[in-house]
This record gives sequence, C-alpha cells and structure tokens, in this order.
Amino acid sequence: MGMTAVDRAPKQDRSRATRQRLLEAAVACLAEHGWAGSTVSVVAERAGVSRGAAQHHFPTREDLFTAAVEYVAEERSSALRDLFPQGAADRRAVVRALVDLFTGPLFRAALHLWVAASDEEQLRARVTELEARVGRETHRIAVDLLGADESRPGVRESVQGLLDMARGLGLANLLTDDTARRDRVVAQWATLLDTALE
Amino acid sequence: MGMTAVDRAPKQDRSRATRQRLLEAAVACLAEHGWAGSTVSVVAERAGVSRGAAQHHFPTREDLFTAAVEYVAEERSSALRDLFPQGAADRRAVVRALVDLFTGPLFRAALHLWVAASDEEQLRARVTELEARVGRETHRIAVDLLGADESRPGVRESVQGLLDMARGLGLANLLTDDTARRDRVVAQWATLLDTALE
Repeated sequence: MGMTAVDRAPKQDRSRATRQRLLEAAVACLAEHGWAGSTVSVVAERAGVSRGAAQHHFPTREDLFTAAVEYVAEERSSALRDLFPQGAADRRAVVRALVDLFTGPLFRAALHLWVAASDEEQLRARVTELEARVGRETHRIAVDLLGADESRPGVRESVQGLLDMARGLGLANLLTDDTARRDRVVAQWATLLDTALE
Repeated sequence: MGMTAVDRAPKQDRSRATRQRLLEAAVACLAEHGWAGSTVSVVAERAGVSRGAAQHHFPTREDLFTAAVEYVAEERSSALRDLFPQGAADRRAVVRALVDLFTGPLFRAALHLWVAASDEEQLRARVTELEARVGRETHRIAVDLLGADESRPGVRESVQGLLDMARGLGLANLLTDDTARRDRVVAQWATLLDTALE
C-alpha cells in the first residue's frame, strides 16, 4: 500500500495500520537482536513511525513486546486453522504444521522474551500470563486439527507432549538448520501419536 | 575442604580446584543473571578467585562460559550413568532422569548461552560446536540406558524425539514450576516410547 492510499484511509484504519506495523517490527526486532537490542525507539524507526506515535500505542517497552508476540501468535494460529478448514484430513500434515509454529521468527522472538523474562521481574508476570494464554490456544488448535478425543486416557498428555517436542525442536533449530533431522523425528513421532490417538 | 587442606595440596591440585570453582560459579551466574550479567569479573568474585587468576585459566569470556557449560554437562552425564550402572532396569525411571537433565541450573545456563549465541557471531561457532558434542553424548547415554537397538527402523528417531521433548519441557519450566504437568506428559510418552523400542 503506497502513502497516498494510507493518507486517504480513515483515521481509525490508519491507527490500526500503524499499530500493526509496530507489532510486526517488534517481533522482527526481537528475533534479530534479542531483548537487550530491542527498544521502543529501534522498533519505531524500523516501522517508519515516530517515537511519540509508538508510545501513544504502547506506553512501555513491556507493553509493546508482549503485545507483539501475542499478535503474531494469533496471526499464526488463524493461519494454521485456515490451512486445515476440514480438520484432521491428514494427521501427519497437521503434526508438521504444528511443529512449524516453533521454527522461524515468531519462535525466536518468543524465546528471547521468555529468557529475558526469566531474569527480569517486570517482564516475568506479563510473559508468564501471555505464555499460558498462547499455550492454551495452541493446545486447543492441536486437539481440534488432530481430531483428538481428550476424554480418553492419555490423549491430552500425548498432545501436550507433541507440543513440548515441537518447542524442543524449535530450540534445536536456533543455531543451525536442523530441518533434515527434524523431518525424520517428526515422521516417527507422528506414527507414535497415531497409536495414542486411535 | 578447609583452607588448610587446600594450602597443603600440591600446586596442580590447587589449580584444578580453582578451575572447577570458576566453572561452577560461571554456570550458576549464567543461570541466574543471563549472558548480559555474566562477566569474568563477576564469576571470579563469586568463586573467590582473583580476576588475574581467572584470566590465567580462561583468557576470554567465551572460553570461560563454553567450558563451564561443557564441564557441568559432563558432570551430569557421568552422574546419570552412575544412577543406572546396570542399564535399562526400569525404562520409565531412565526417561524421568533424562528429562530431569533439562530442568535446573545447567539447562537455564545453557539456554542463556544458546540465546546469546544466536545474536553474537563470536559465540555462535563455539556454542554450536559445544552443543553438537553435548547433544551426541546425551544421545549416546540415552541409547545405552534405554537399551535401544538403533539398527531397528524408527528407534534412533524415537530416542531423538524423546530428547527434543525433554528440551521443550525444560523450556516450559523456565518461568513457572511445570512439574505436575511434566510428570503426566512424561508418563504417557514413556509408554509410547516403550511401544517404539520393543
């Protein structure tokens, strides 16, 4: 969208677009530079927004970055639901897509935020709460898309374990490209999951 | 051991004891304060060693912290082997002990080091190499203790997936005490792993 189109948009839409640009820039910044290198000023510049406008949307640094991780997590969750509108057509494809949630910039950004929160009291409560909310939503999507019946013994824990494994695979991918090994692990554990869910 | 005993020890033993104190202090420091808060000076003070002596053992900050994570990982690996001198007597107990490797100060320290390495070129190569070495050793121990026959299809990937899940469970334990949930997940996946290994 060029500047002219933005200028013509109503004020509320412009404000929403600014907010969105800030959130996306914040996640990219966290993923690339970590918490120490991520300030409101750096993000505002990256988003092409004035520092004042950024602070109007997000009064504190904690506000900006927790909102950013939540926003991008929600975007990715809806994208995942849209990928499988009919639910568990192909369980392996669903497992692969779930694991993919934990690679890429969103996971890197979230990881930086978690690790920073483990050392900083101000962030800790915010990120703990955010993490619980995002975790519950991811679990819900996984249960739906996998067609898992959680009333059966062990099914809930099988899905949780899959998401824990996905998180661990994300961590294994942080410093090197772990794609080839990850594909083999995911194929094997998708088979084991099938046993647990049938 | 009191100071008198230390003073009587031969020079080489004293040097080894100093090195060990520095390594243990470095891991504790990383776990508590993260990479940004962990310098050679801070560790030297914590270990009760002069800054000069610390730099004699570890010329750079990268030397100190990668050596520290490796040393503590080796200590934990031998402790794990010693726990099960007869191998896979009780596979569930082995799975629990493997998962325990990824909670506690060593995992927190390693996590801080990984995340810092993802942003800092100087650390990256060192930590990537360290991580590969520690990962191979952990995998070897897991295979031995679980009595896993890797010549059978899927067995290698099952063990890898278990360790990935353990890493993800470690991450889930970073901000809150996740013990109760983790125990249930581990019990369920130990059952699934049994299917894969039999």
